[in-house]
Amino acid sequence: MTQAAYQKVSPIQASEYRARRENILGWLEEFDAHGFVWWGNAYIFYLTGFAFVPTERPIALILTESGETVLFVPRLELEHAQTYAHVDRVAHYPEFPSDTHPMEYLRDELKSLGLGVREGTLLGDASGYGKVMGYRGPMLDDLLPLSFFNVASDLDEEMFVKSDTEIALIRESAYWAGIAHDLLQKYTRVGATESDVEMRASFDANQLLLDTYQGDYRALSWGRSGPFATYRGQVGEHSALPHSLNINAVFKEGDTLVTGASCPMFGYYSELERTMFIGEPSSEQTRLFNHMLALQDLAIERCVVGQPCSSVDKAVRDYFDEHDLWEHWRHHVGHNIGVRYHEGPFLDIGDETIMEAGMLFTVEPGLYAPGVGGFRHSDTILVTEQGPEFLTQYPRELEALILPVA
Amino acid sequence: MTQAAYQKVSPIQASEYRARRENILGWLEEFDAHGFVWWGNAYIFYLTGFAFVPTERPIALILTESGETVLFVPRLELEHAQTYAHVDRVAHYPEFPSDTHPMEYLRDELKSLGLGVREGTLLGDASGYGKVMGYRGPMLDDLLPLSFFNVASDLDEEMFVKSDTEIALIRESAYWAGIAHDLLQKYTRVGATESDVEMRASFDANQLLLDTYQGDYRALSWGRSGPFATYRGQVGEHSALPHSLNINAVFKEGDTLVTGASCPMFGYYSELERTMFIGEPSSEQTRLFNHMLALQDLAIERCVVGQPCSSVDKAVRDYFDEHDLWEHWRHHVGHNIGVRYHEGPFLDIGDETIMEAGMLFTVEPGLYAPGVGGFRHSDTILVTEQGPEFLTQYPRELEALILPVA
Repeated sequence: MTQAAYQKVSPIQASEYRARRENILGWLEEFDAHGFVWWGNAYIFYLTGFAFVPTERPIALILTESGETVLFVPRLELEHAQTYAHVDRVAHYPEFPSDTHPMEYLRDELKSLGLGVREGTLLGDASGYGKVMGYRGPMLDDLLPLSFFNVASDLDEEMFVKSDTEIALIRESAYWAGIAHDLLQKYTRVGATESDVEMRASFDANQLLLDTYQGDYRALSWGRSGPFATYRGQVGEHSALPHSLNINAVFKEGDTLVTGASCPMFGYYSELERTMFIGEPSSEQTRLFNHMLALQDLAIERCVVGQPCSSVDKAVRDYFDEHDLWEHWRHHVGHNIGVRYHEGPFLDIGDETIMEAGMLFTVEPGLYAPGVGGFRHSDTILVTEQGPEFLTQYPRELEALILPVA
Repeated sequence: MTQAAYQKVSPIQASEYRARRENILGWLEEFDAHGFVWWGNAYIFYLTGFAFVPTERPIALILTESGETVLFVPRLELEHAQTYAHVDRVAHYPEFPSDTHPMEYLRDELKSLGLGVREGTLLGDASGYGKVMGYRGPMLDDLLPLSFFNVASDLDEEMFVKSDTEIALIRESAYWAGIAHDLLQKYTRVGATESDVEMRASFDANQLLLDTYQGDYRALSWGRSGPFATYRGQVGEHSALPHSLNINAVFKEGDTLVTGASCPMFGYYSELERTMFIGEPSSEQTRLFNHMLALQDLAIERCVVGQPCSSVDKAVRDYFDEHDLWEHWRHHVGHNIGVRYHEGPFLDIGDETIMEAGMLFTVEPGLYAPGVGGFRHSDTILVTEQGPEFLTQYPRELEALILPVA
């Protein structure tokens, strides 16, 4: 990406949140339902722009058939929601557990909105709040004479295809992931500790972002803020564990490294991962790297409009057959990404979703060899009418990913 | 804490995990049940020591009445679980979604263990995996001729009282939280950005920890590694939002600040929070700070063996009445903490749990004034036979928490 082409991005606007809500209101007639209740923080963010820390205190979004949008929050989130949520009104309950359960307040709120006062159906992602941090409570259909119908999968499907504004945010996330990753690569040296290098790279990338955005950047993510690049314990032999956690590994010559980088950008994520080596790779490291790169190439090529997601995984599996690589197989090819780090559809033999323009996938087939290491690149790929497009922009070839020993 | 008293800590040992499992096996007879299935990552960590990243790929822990312990994982976690989980055996399924659903493999695994082959009862925290990152699937009682009984609350209760080894880890977490917080306080200055200061303090505290532990430290947390100290957007007027997110605030004279610090220590957390001011506080800032400190004092005093948790919140509420402070009330007094950042019991009028020696609470009554700021200290307090004990050790008085303007 050239400097001339670089443009800062802005958060999703109120009109887009409104359009998302209006879109799903159309489902009510289909299900003969009177309203929605949404509990999941990703769904609430998607429909209102309100990012919050999920705790044992339930938060619920109510949409009525007349289009009224009410966010139901604990007292401690009232002003926060009033300031940031794109909703008509914020209702609140005192606390959880407290002497009156939040669901009793929610019942009254729904009644006052004309929901649940007669037999009817509510739609949403759950009829009650999940088991988060010690929350316990009844389901809505225990409290009101209504039936609940779960349409979480339907909203997930709405989220499959990204809008132009969402794509711009994810592209920008990928840009900053690249900046952080570049620093990670520069700072990694024999004798340093993984968390030292991760934190230094993330810190410096965040400085660059703050300099660029001059106060206009928001993560809108309850996890972290700013670009980050990590190893998560995938250093040396431990890189053979695809979902390792940080082990405070000390880098040494001969290590195979698997990285990860991203940046929450107004609530949206990308994913960038690379396999690197400290010093010249052995013939076995080189062989597995080359297979991995060939697998990623063939998988990316197949991210095309009109084909099922399964076709990408099938092509990868055919390559595993052909080159006798099954001992190194650990997982499918990739996943969609957006306000959640992993979301459907999946590049997996079990997912027959047809790929459409505007879908995004992490393409990350991996090979893992105990005693040697892990071999996985991940790029965030946009499916377009013109073919697959890289949102992540970072060297993929072996020569660019060999780190000097001294 | 003096340097002489300082001792590094070690992770929970296999024998303690075994004792935890043996303890709950006693429940089977009581419920006439044949085994357990646990899905929640905190429960699995508590029973096996296996820390992992929860994704759309379910992980389940099976315990049979004969005491056999089997961890059921996706292929990509097999070697990871074999290396780190204190279990008898690791079983695995290929992938999710894939062409065969993970629950079908789990059904077969349970059958081979003699569970679900005849009418019977299984205990656990859920009869299926939750809605995580696009997971969808059936419940166990849809697949097998068994009934499921939820004992999540019972295991939560087992986790209420901490063992000596757990307390040692949380005490050590509090020690490193203090180190990170001290740096946060030192680095905060007019014109700096919150994430800049947070990352610098966390980075330097992590260096100190790595120097001390020389490779023996593990977070055993999928969130982050090392000590951290944050503002989470609670800077200036925004500090009046108890659960704010990072807003990349730039510090200025007159700001009220609310901090947070912790450190995952072999899977265990503490909580340390302080209210600070940049420059001399106004009379209103001072007034609210003093009320907050008085509230925290009276709440800590009441963390005593034999009293209900509710009594602490009641005493705080009486103080709100007495001093006409209700416009500033936003939340209850605190929560237990351990492998989860928030867990029950709660210091809340709705929680009648009797306090016992070995329970831990964050004690954090808060006052919030729009336009002025938020006022909240949080200390991690251990209930002992000798009275409440501070695990967090950090100055609480106003004079120590006023930052210089230049």
